[in-house]
Amino acid sequence: MRNIKIVLEYEGTNYCGWQTQNRRSSCDVRRSTRSVQETLEKALLQILQKKTKVIGSGRTDSGVHAEAQVASFLTDTQMDLKQLSRALNGVLPKDIKIARIQEVSNKFHARFSAKSKLYRYTVVNNQYASPFIRQYAHLVKQPLDVKRMRQAAKYFLGRHDFRSFQAADKKQRHSVRKILLLDIKKRADLIQLYIEADGFLYKMARNIAGTLIEVGRGRLLPPDIAKILKTKDRKYAGPCAPARGLCLMRVKYKS
Amino acid sequence: MRNIKIVLEYEGTNYCGWQTQNRRSSCDVRRSTRSVQETLEKALLQILQKKTKVIGSGRTDSGVHAEAQVASFLTDTQMDLKQLSRALNGVLPKDIKIARIQEVSNKFHARFSAKSKLYRYTVVNNQYASPFIRQYAHLVKQPLDVKRMRQAAKYFLGRHDFRSFQAADKKQRHSVRKILLLDIKKRADLIQLYIEADGFLYKMARNIAGTLIEVGRGRLLPPDIAKILKTKDRKYAGPCAPARGLCLMRVKYKS
Repeated sequence: MRNIKIVLEYEGTNYCGWQTQNRRSSCDVRRSTRSVQETLEKALLQILQKKTKVIGSGRTDSGVHAEAQVASFLTDTQMDLKQLSRALNGVLPKDIKIARIQEVSNKFHARFSAKSKLYRYTVVNNQYASPFIRQYAHLVKQPLDVKRMRQAAKYFLGRHDFRSFQAADKKQRHSVRKILLLDIKKRADLIQLYIEADGFLYKMARNIAGTLIEVGRGRLLPPDIAKILKTKDRKYAGPCAPARGLCLMRVKYKS
Repeated sequence: MRNIKIVLEYEGTNYCGWQTQNRRSSCDVRRSTRSVQETLEKALLQILQKKTKVIGSGRTDSGVHAEAQVASFLTDTQMDLKQLSRALNGVLPKDIKIARIQEVSNKFHARFSAKSKLYRYTVVNNQYASPFIRQYAHLVKQPLDVKRMRQAAKYFLGRHDFRSFQAADKKQRHSVRKILLLDIKKRADLIQLYIEADGFLYKMARNIAGTLIEVGRGRLLPPDIAKILKTKDRKYAGPCAPARGLCLMRVKYKS
């Protein structure tokens, strides 16, 4: 069997997330019951004429996008991989495309081999969201204090128990994660939060984004982040920022 | 009466174009019968409680986008313009937004005062179109020779009779136009054509884009452009490139 690694781009707007079971979301309107994973498996079945299970690097929530989600699958096809990728892109819908494909060692596991993930959260800080970015950004009309958001971001760096930042409705037993990077970039009316961690709890990226927006609004102060982390109680953090602003940018693996 | 100038952004995907009568398009599937203009007039009626006629700088075809379409309207409202713009954006759909608003002299006419227009045509030259750009770009899988496209572009510059590049089904009597700029930029898998002219015949920008793509494919040679212009016959130019790749970037006025 060959182990095939693929890098996927998808606009999550019309999907219930990476995985079908991932529909517990409380802060999203569910637009679809289709998952990215099952759409991909359907395309594989069509091209390879064989049921093929796809393993993703992790789940993305309903409505969340990916510029580079990683997945892998085992197959006995002898098809040339470039050909396979073209064939799959031919049958996949326009909002899911395979950007790269390669054969990897059988030790590679899209989920367990992942070392870290990088997400980007995009805020439009303006009176309106440009029609060209409206599906990929969260509109905040109140002017945000980016300097304060950057000060607050520092408190997230490093290893912490992120219990206060996990989804209220889905608690994981092991809630310690390490944030490796939390950069905030401002360009014209866009504020982009880049968050890299060795792992994310369910809704953690969006809860962090929502909390940093509260700091930007002046409703929380930068040192409040340390306090919120300490409480280990979801109710002290800010609201979960909408899915459409979030995009999985990169999954890093042990080389 | 106050003369109000607005700069609009819209994603044209779900519109039949700027104007409702603009539905003669033969190379588009008409997805909608709504026009941008009537959507705007409906919003003005809702906010100002008065029928208000909007004049655009010119028509954009069904499915064509605008990052900065200019329009104007006369009104006797005394409303603060920032407030008016916010109110209009509040009722406008998400794919049409007002970016700027200002009061101008009564001599200003969005159409007749326009000096030139700048369009951008975007081609994705790859095996697939990224889901994030698929609505705003035309996918061409065959590798295009950008150097040749640039050589061909030079033949368009200056004043010519563009009869060979106007829509087959809608001929204008005066078909002489002046192309002020035709730049081709390549960045990763995107090829972007920037075309500025003192005016555009119906489908002229897309026919030029389609013809330059034929040059990029090697089906036409750069000097063929001069010949095609000379024939004054639409049948010698390349096909009309799809609407989704076209975006009105700027309308320049006599200052």
